[in-house]
Amino acid sequence: MTHRAGRHFLQIPGPTNVPDRILRAIDRATIDHRSGEFGELGAECLTGLKAIFQTESPVIIYPSSATGAWEAALVNTLSAGDRVLAFETGHFANLWAKVASNLGLCVDLIPGDWRRGVDAEQVAEKLAADRNHEIQAVMAVHNETSTGVRSNVPAVRHALNEAKHPALLMVDTVSSLGSIDYCHDEWGVDVAIGGSQKGMMLPPGLSFNALSPRALEASKRSTLPKSYWRWTEMLASNSKGFFPYTPATGLLYGLREAIRMLQEEGLPCVFARHARLAEAARVAARQWGLEMVAQNPSEYSNVVTALLLPDGFDEKALRSLILEKLNMSLGSGLGKLAGRAFRIGHLGDFNELMLAGTLAGVEMGLTLAGVPHRKGGVNAALEYLTRRLA
Amino acid sequence: MTHRAGRHFLQIPGPTNVPDRILRAIDRATIDHRSGEFGELGAECLTGLKAIFQTESPVIIYPSSATGAWEAALVNTLSAGDRVLAFETGHFANLWAKVASNLGLCVDLIPGDWRRGVDAEQVAEKLAADRNHEIQAVMAVHNETSTGVRSNVPAVRHALNEAKHPALLMVDTVSSLGSIDYCHDEWGVDVAIGGSQKGMMLPPGLSFNALSPRALEASKRSTLPKSYWRWTEMLASNSKGFFPYTPATGLLYGLREAIRMLQEEGLPCVFARHARLAEAARVAARQWGLEMVAQNPSEYSNVVTALLLPDGFDEKALRSLILEKLNMSLGSGLGKLAGRAFRIGHLGDFNELMLAGTLAGVEMGLTLAGVPHRKGGVNAALEYLTRRLA
Amino acid sequence: MTHRAGRHFLQIPGPTNVPDRILRAIDRATIDHRSGEFGELGAECLTGLKAIFQTESPVIIYPSSATGAWEAALVNTLSAGDRVLAFETGHFANLWAKVASNLGLCVDLIPGDWRRGVDAEQVAEKLAADRNHEIQAVMAVHNETSTGVRSNVPAVRHALNEAKHPALLMVDTVSSLGSIDYCHDEWGVDVAIGGSQKGMMLPPGLSFNALSPRALEASKRSTLPKSYWRWTEMLASNSKGFFPYTPATGLLYGLREAIRMLQEEGLPCVFARHARLAEAARVAARQWGLEMVAQNPSEYSNVVTALLLPDGFDEKALRSLILEKLNMSLGSGLGKLAGRAFRIGHLGDFNELMLAGTLAGVEMGLTLAGVPHRKGGVNAALEYLTRRLA
Amino acid sequence: MTHRAGRHFLQIPGPTNVPDRILRAIDRATIDHRSGEFGELGAECLTGLKAIFQTESPVIIYPSSATGAWEAALVNTLSAGDRVLAFETGHFANLWAKVASNLGLCVDLIPGDWRRGVDAEQVAEKLAADRNHEIQAVMAVHNETSTGVRSNVPAVRHALNEAKHPALLMVDTVSSLGSIDYCHDEWGVDVAIGGSQKGMMLPPGLSFNALSPRALEASKRSTLPKSYWRWTEMLASNSKGFFPYTPATGLLYGLREAIRMLQEEGLPCVFARHARLAEAARVAARQWGLEMVAQNPSEYSNVVTALLLPDGFDEKALRSLILEKLNMSLGSGLGKLAGRAFRIGHLGDFNELMLAGTLAGVEMGLTLAGVPHRKGGVNAALEYLTRRLA
Repeated sequence: MTHRAGRHFLQIPGPTNVPDRILRAIDRATIDHRSGEFGELGAECLTGLKAIFQTESPVIIYPSSATGAWEAALVNTLSAGDRVLAFETGHFANLWAKVASNLGLCVDLIPGDWRRGVDAEQVAEKLAADRNHEIQAVMAVHNETSTGVRSNVPAVRHALNEAKHPALLMVDTVSSLGSIDYCHDEWGVDVAIGGSQKGMMLPPGLSFNALSPRALEASKRSTLPKSYWRWTEMLASNSKGFFPYTPATGLLYGLREAIRMLQEEGLPCVFARHARLAEAARVAARQWGLEMVAQNPSEYSNVVTALLLPDGFDEKALRSLILEKLNMSLGSGLGKLAGRAFRIGHLGDFNELMLAGTLAGVEMGLTLAGVPHRKGGVNAALEYLTRRLA
Repeated sequence: MTHRAGRHFLQIPGPTNVPDRILRAIDRATIDHRSGEFGELGAECLTGLKAIFQTESPVIIYPSSATGAWEAALVNTLSAGDRVLAFETGHFANLWAKVASNLGLCVDLIPGDWRRGVDAEQVAEKLAADRNHEIQAVMAVHNETSTGVRSNVPAVRHALNEAKHPALLMVDTVSSLGSIDYCHDEWGVDVAIGGSQKGMMLPPGLSFNALSPRALEASKRSTLPKSYWRWTEMLASNSKGFFPYTPATGLLYGLREAIRMLQEEGLPCVFARHARLAEAARVAARQWGLEMVAQNPSEYSNVVTALLLPDGFDEKALRSLILEKLNMSLGSGLGKLAGRAFRIGHLGDFNELMLAGTLAGVEMGLTLAGVPHRKGGVNAALEYLTRRLA
Repeated sequence: MTHRAGRHFLQIPGPTNVPDRILRAIDRATIDHRSGEFGELGAECLTGLKAIFQTESPVIIYPSSATGAWEAALVNTLSAGDRVLAFETGHFANLWAKVASNLGLCVDLIPGDWRRGVDAEQVAEKLAADRNHEIQAVMAVHNETSTGVRSNVPAVRHALNEAKHPALLMVDTVSSLGSIDYCHDEWGVDVAIGGSQKGMMLPPGLSFNALSPRALEASKRSTLPKSYWRWTEMLASNSKGFFPYTPATGLLYGLREAIRMLQEEGLPCVFARHARLAEAARVAARQWGLEMVAQNPSEYSNVVTALLLPDGFDEKALRSLILEKLNMSLGSGLGKLAGRAFRIGHLGDFNELMLAGTLAGVEMGLTLAGVPHRKGGVNAALEYLTRRLA
Repeated sequence: MTHRAGRHFLQIPGPTNVPDRILRAIDRATIDHRSGEFGELGAECLTGLKAIFQTESPVIIYPSSATGAWEAALVNTLSAGDRVLAFETGHFANLWAKVASNLGLCVDLIPGDWRRGVDAEQVAEKLAADRNHEIQAVMAVHNETSTGVRSNVPAVRHALNEAKHPALLMVDTVSSLGSIDYCHDEWGVDVAIGGSQKGMMLPPGLSFNALSPRALEASKRSTLPKSYWRWTEMLASNSKGFFPYTPATGLLYGLREAIRMLQEEGLPCVFARHARLAEAARVAARQWGLEMVAQNPSEYSNVVTALLLPDGFDEKALRSLILEKLNMSLGSGLGKLAGRAFRIGHLGDFNELMLAGTLAGVEMGLTLAGVPHRKGGVNAALEYLTRRLA
């Protein structure tokens, strides 16, 4: 391959740019996964991750993609034919629903237009209608990576509480964890799903479940076949920092470092930084006059901004051109947004000047691709950031 | 943690010492897993791995521990209640059988004393008795990591052929792949299971399935619930070098490098090197007078040697002392060998002088721990190696 | 130290951002510097570097800072009390002249205002006046890093030729090599001085001399005491890729990789990229209304832009604020520009989006520091770049 | 190049095997060498290095090979034509004397047979004869890397004291620093010379001078031309952790880590470890029946053992064979030992099992090369080590 000068801007909404400190932590000799030294590593990761999820309940770490943690949430708590409530908030919500179907669950998928989050009122209606409590789980995606829409998880919890419905609340935090405030215990979530390669700043390869006492109880009744994803053996081994099968040691070194970095910066600062950078991206988008996929300002995502192109323009062409001429990767339109929307990732180990470069790449790309837009998006973003930093 | 001078000798039978060249390949910025650059990486890994398995059929790469690939082999080909034939050749054979049980399969586990491989005659008898062809799969572990016993896979295939039995042949190659000759197509294996952290010289975190046309056909009939492990979507995406969900990019960089390294050395040379070093380890063991767990010379493993301690001596104490005084990790006694046997890993990126250091550590450790033995094991091993190198 | 989110922008005019590919090349086990493997490494570096200097004459590689290569150029060719002609084009020209004085040479330093390059007419006058050819060497800095002024080396050569003056022509290419076209042989330079940490994209620690046949002859007559810097032993060892004393093996791995990267991109493309990015920086500066230190457009540097602040504003305060709030390092005002000018480095492994981030940081910083300027510098730069990329 | 399986054993007496922890510290983005962050790095290195030299006086760090620090010691303290006393204890002592000659000093080189250290009685005689105190410096090599002979530095100091001779005492600690006890202040050394690539466990590229108040005074009178090596500017900048010219930032990261590692292990433990491993190497050598170059047991080096081959055997052939068949680099015979002696480096980040591998490589190599020797050297070394560890 020919050398491309300068740093590549990996501005897809995950995997994100892995900071050198984490890459270097991973670049270390493997140790015996049954040694005391490993036990300390495992324990620090498991404990630290609880703080990131803001929970006192156990957290599970899988050597797998986050897709695996979706499956784990379901197979540990449910049984064949169980009914689950899902919401078509976007591509990943759909994929998770498909995982549920693949596993033999009966999925009640509330249709959506991919521009709004979970509608708590619809949740309330559905739950009210479910007199026999057939619904065993409500599956919500906290931050829908394909659309840049954040769902109001506490409102969903509120609907469950109001309806006095015993269904488990399952939340996908894959692209929100470590970037957008997520309060597992306070929000009353039963099973959360997370991954390493977004706000956690690691390469892909680790996934997480955060549990609740009710989820643990449900796991005793669940009869879906499972082995790799079984919480029981995991929890037993985890108590001393170990794992029931060979863990991905290298990535655990990285996870420990990532947790330390998030703690050094402080979670509130991490969330505020993401909020500031995201708003700057939206300021640019408004100036360009490109329509956001997300329609509801209270649901704007602080990790990714998905923008619709005017009719007749293809996001694939725009992204290819930007990759070729400006050495930046942007997120593609997924599912029904394919061809129509592109996505700017602004999460993880990210700062003002990286965002400036990113937005500059988009603005130059729009011009080079002939996409009609108002100039000055970068300028507007910089003015916003300058005010915020003053 | 206090600094321990010098290099740690990681002589457990996997994860193995990761060579710098692979660590450095992994220590690289993540790329867009939907980019053309990624497609080339994926394609090179998928193609290269076929050569390592010595197969023309597709190979699957999972972001998971090898335990996941055990599960994948089963859920893709079998259905609830299916009968499978397994052999208690050691700890990992047992664990795999347990995975099968966990998944709702009916496991016919032939008991064993952990000192011999799969008995092809027993296989023949079992198959002959199975007139209705209820057995859907025969599960064999090629190299049993807990005992240092290698099973004769072609003999098992021969038994199936002789019996004209249609059961699938599944083989665990986790600790043999890339170290001991394994010929997927020639031996007529239907599903092989592999992992990254042994002969493939990578950190743990990737697992493999190698398939056969018959396995692919079986997968169409299989009804066990599955999603993460589904071959269908994998194979569809793999055709262009991509994956249906986010792959572990960092480890794939490492896998590409590992495949290149094995090809540069040449598989026959890799196998010969392992054979030579393993025999040297056994020469030392014989001199020490320690009994090998493996009883049948034709079944000696070329990747790990498990040695029994005399009564009254605990392998845990021996290994702790060696770790503390000599900075070397040895493999523990697993399952019913706990306390009684320790294991010397001699696989992966390994050579004569590393083996010399390893055996020296064992010999010094035996003396320090007061374990009765004949001196001169290292010496004998060096004489053997010298003759082989002359 | 507290974690700073996101990548640091190291926009001093060197050391520059070291690309991962080079960092990883350096991160390798040391090899025996008397082995055949080392000889190949040394030979590839020495040969490759000749192509970068565009010379057929030998190139010397020192384990030292570039300051050492200044000294080497002088002590190898001159004798105590020799007269040399130098030009006060900026801080580094002055430092080099001071090195000459320290070594006992008689330096004829033509004063300058630090805003222009070497004046070829002045050179011609000086040479004409030197009837007895007492001047032994003319010392010019190709790109003055402290001011962002490039001197016209061919014009200096022309002056020497016209005057038929035998003085050696010595040129400091520390901040131009690998970034701005430098043609050692074509331009008739006798000794060039280079370093690893600018356009060569390496960490600091290596320095270079490129020679000429006349320089080699002069070295036979030179009587300044020398040992570490002696070309003679170097050239003798270099013929087989070795060095007379222990070389900096790690940095040589990096140098080999850097040369490969420059060759993959192609030197003309490297120079064009630097020119394009530099002009974009100047477009921004013009829009801001900040005065460039460089006064002569034909002498603008393509690697660094030095800008004067209005009276009453201190560059130290501006740079501290930008470092603290925006995680970017800019170059300080050096020597008589201290307090008055700051410098933007735009060289090495650098591209459009990194420049956009850099200029955004300057523009935000100017506002935050209350420095009067016209907005829209980044915008203007992006428009320029967009036109160039169309 | 073809892949060589397993870790290379770099057992030359420096550069030594760089531990991963140091390699990873070096593999880090360059920072602004004028920033506060750099100042902290520089200060920690400069202070920490004083503890390693066991001195309260300043230490100088050069971006250069150790050869440069030889030159620095001389040019900072002496003047043209000054007389210095040197001792032909081996190849490096000779080279240092040659540096002195190159620089115009008048070297009084006491001949030696390369098998003994500096003879304090000869020193006393020489000093007594020097009534006019013409000798300005006495140059001793603490550990002669080419012969494996350690000189008694306190005895040399004693001779100077007894003679009330004002000459400066200069000591080369290149291959002893961080491996063999060296007490700069207690022993009354005026200038010490060190390097990064031996006991300091770094790649080559940094060198050191440790000073004394008398050396600093001498530097005021010294008139040898100097610039790069001048202590004055160094000390002025060093007071705040900075350097007068661009330092080798990457290697300084590594130096900081090396100092931390030595402090974690504790210097007395580091020295004891080297002593133990060195004696084990000598035990093996005695068993082999190979003659050590070093003749005086009280002068045996704890970092390198040089062994003579019987007549008719060439060390080059032996080392080539060991490199080719066993992937280990041994030190060549240097100077008049070329062809006759080979050297085993056992210093730096080194431990028992690495030594076992090293000695095994030598023993196998001796047999393979047909060199007459008694078997059992490794065995004897292991027995010695076992006793020491009991």
